[in-house]
Amino acid sequence: MRIIDFRLRPPTGAFLKTRIYSAPDNRDRYTAKLGFEPAPSVQKQSLDLLFAEMDAAGISTGVVVARNTDKLGVVTNQDVAEIAAAHPTRFVAVGSLHPAIRKAAMLQIEEAQRLGLKMVNIEPGALAEPLHVDDRRLYPLYATCEDLGIGVVIMSGGAAGPDISYTSPEHIDRVLGDFPKLPVVSSHGNWPWVQEIIHVAFRRPNLYLSPDMYLPNLPGMDDYVRAANGFMQDQFLFATAYPFCPLKAYTDWFLSLPWQARTLEKALHLNAEALLGLKPSATDAT
Amino acid sequence: MRIIDFRLRPPTGAFLKTRIYSAPDNRDRYTAKLGFEPAPSVQKQSLDLLFAEMDAAGISTGVVVARNTDKLGVVTNQDVAEIAAAHPTRFVAVGSLHPAIRKAAMLQIEEAQRLGLKMVNIEPGALAEPLHVDDRRLYPLYATCEDLGIGVVIMSGGAAGPDISYTSPEHIDRVLGDFPKLPVVSSHGNWPWVQEIIHVAFRRPNLYLSPDMYLPNLPGMDDYVRAANGFMQDQFLFATAYPFCPLKAYTDWFLSLPWQARTLEKALHLNAEALLGLKPSATDAT
Amino acid sequence: MRIIDFRLRPPTGAFLKTRIYSAPDNRDRYTAKLGFEPAPSVQKQSLDLLFAEMDAAGISTGVVVARNTDKLGVVTNQDVAEIAAAHPTRFVAVGSLHPAIRKAAMLQIEEAQRLGLKMVNIEPGALAEPLHVDDRRLYPLYATCEDLGIGVVIMSGGAAGPDISYTSPEHIDRVLGDFPKLPVVSSHGNWPWVQEIIHVAFRRPNLYLSPDMYLPNLPGMDDYVRAANGFMQDQFLFATAYPFCPLKAYTDWFLSLPWQARTLEKALHLNAEALLGLKPSATDAT
Repeated sequence: MRIIDFRLRPPTGAFLKTRIYSAPDNRDRYTAKLGFEPAPSVQKQSLDLLFAEMDAAGISTGVVVARNTDKLGVVTNQDVAEIAAAHPTRFVAVGSLHPAIRKAAMLQIEEAQRLGLKMVNIEPGALAEPLHVDDRRLYPLYATCEDLGIGVVIMSGGAAGPDISYTSPEHIDRVLGDFPKLPVVSSHGNWPWVQEIIHVAFRRPNLYLSPDMYLPNLPGMDDYVRAANGFMQDQFLFATAYPFCPLKAYTDWFLSLPWQARTLEKALHLNAEALLGLKPSATDAT
Repeated sequence: MRIIDFRLRPPTGAFLKTRIYSAPDNRDRYTAKLGFEPAPSVQKQSLDLLFAEMDAAGISTGVVVARNTDKLGVVTNQDVAEIAAAHPTRFVAVGSLHPAIRKAAMLQIEEAQRLGLKMVNIEPGALAEPLHVDDRRLYPLYATCEDLGIGVVIMSGGAAGPDISYTSPEHIDRVLGDFPKLPVVSSHGNWPWVQEIIHVAFRRPNLYLSPDMYLPNLPGMDDYVRAANGFMQDQFLFATAYPFCPLKAYTDWFLSLPWQARTLEKALHLNAEALLGLKPSATDAT
Repeated sequence: MRIIDFRLRPPTGAFLKTRIYSAPDNRDRYTAKLGFEPAPSVQKQSLDLLFAEMDAAGISTGVVVARNTDKLGVVTNQDVAEIAAAHPTRFVAVGSLHPAIRKAAMLQIEEAQRLGLKMVNIEPGALAEPLHVDDRRLYPLYATCEDLGIGVVIMSGGAAGPDISYTSPEHIDRVLGDFPKLPVVSSHGNWPWVQEIIHVAFRRPNLYLSPDMYLPNLPGMDDYVRAANGFMQDQFLFATAYPFCPLKAYTDWFLSLPWQARTLEKALHLNAEALLGLKPSATDAT
């Protein structure tokens, strides 16, 4: 079955200057806490090793997510479009915008659209002045994206902001209710507010959860799985948050969970294909 | 054993004009997400079918809960009193009041008392201007109810307001602490804040939880059951939230959970009888 | 194996005038809700019985935690230092300060240091004017403690304040982020915000969780255990919250949980020894 990794930042180009590669000790501390060994491709910053690890894990497509933050670094729309263009069988690109600078952000949305990107990523808690997801300054951007049919990926789980209030579920709940036609992916799945965000997903069909690195043996794991096996099956996405998690070990562990067949198919590729406007690949037939 | 369903809105009279019957698609979407089929009595709006379904489920008494909201509709004290009077072996009535209009609400409390209703229902998150449960404007009403010995049912779980902050546990916790002699039933059990509301129940003996439709296979289910089997056994109420859940399928599922005998007896009827001032029925002897 | 009980308030001296001994009905209600019988040493206020119960439970050392609150009573630094000095093989003392009176609190920190106490306890939600843990008025105290190398115990779980917002995780999260070198023990483990506080522990290595009385058969229990068996093993502390829990029954129950060997060793004594600057005792060799 095709596997799409909805958050994979490869060791190449502009990514190497961002914090996930420029601060390896911090990154590896997370990896270790999750019970994993760092991947060789991360340690050696090798695309070739990454491709081998993708093959070993059975991951056909990595969603290369741009970022535009003051604290975690910058990878532009142009950067991810080029990376995806250089490896079209491996990668799909998601753009980004700097949400605190409205006029520039408006141009970045246009740019993303011009480059054929279906979604843009924002990380409002990682700005110099951190913003909550429902900050009024983000609303023009949400409105524009909703009107243009561009979905938004929001880092709104884990250490998304300076304190845990930045992942508290009322913020994203308001955005989802105010922009009911805007597809929103919560990267890190609003962890640790698991019971609460599952309620939000119950109420808001435009929310997609991708707990990625905040799943393995962490509190709430069983709740994500149970909900994804039930009402939430159209709203759940597989992702490794690479380079935080090694592809093979994470994927093997993910596949060992008690998924229902239909949930797995949707989580591994069908939901991502719908969000990103991808054609089902040939590997789907297997 | 007698089974009292603490939240049952029959397909008759004023209920038919409220949103749970006038917007069937919305209602059926909830039913489907919970994994149930809509009940025939709901689809056909038939009281006779409802009575047959009550019998099949073993539900002897339905608590017919009035409502007085701008967004979900209005069923008055008079309405529910008449429904209960027409079917005294089937129904017990709980009144309601419009919490944003203080003087009218005061009269509605008097009216409820005059009609012999033991409790009144409020849904402050479903008003034109949604109110949090601990909004100062509700305090005169809580004070009056406490002084008169009338308990309050509050819809403070699920989609109780425009966003999830309306079910956040600090609001109801303050009310319970400020009116320690006021019995308060949380309809929908403050779901999804399950761990938090169980703490509130631990601390506040005047709180009663009735997760009703937000129990089946949803996150927190096991925590409700465990707490109800322990310290919380006097504070837990069975309810179907009909028409959202079909009586037989919901009840069968509820009875399949790992209850202790004493918990079940209390959840199914003893706690409701104490709250509503009902005499134990003849069926209790079985 | 040596067992250090990180929160044990013996029935002696100033403790007898504090609420945990002066309001026995309230205390025993908690004990009963947790499923325990009150300990004879509590009922008879007997130190000799307590020592016998410590021996029966295998608890070698009790951390005698002072308190300085308007609502729960006062046990001074001098009081606990004397109790510990009178029974040096049984007790270790943790001081306290009154966090709303800054200049007095500064002197209390100095006093604690002069008495050789390694940590001080604060209970800001139990003051006449309750304070949140991240109230600005506490920041000079945190700064002084951090600079002097004195850790802080905060009662920030359970009924720590007038409502549940006093245990909400964003408050302690901010303190931990703003004072990254300050070791902070959360007494009552920020229960019931279990999933959330485990995230905070994941992010903040200076947080130590001690759910103590809010562990047995309460929601979140399994999450604490799973996290303590994983990334959180250096940040978890055993405590009974005596006189709320009887030593033998609580300890037997705690030891019956599915701990990994290394986690147990750390939770029972290694983590406490590191925090309190204790030498590993002879009993460690067994």
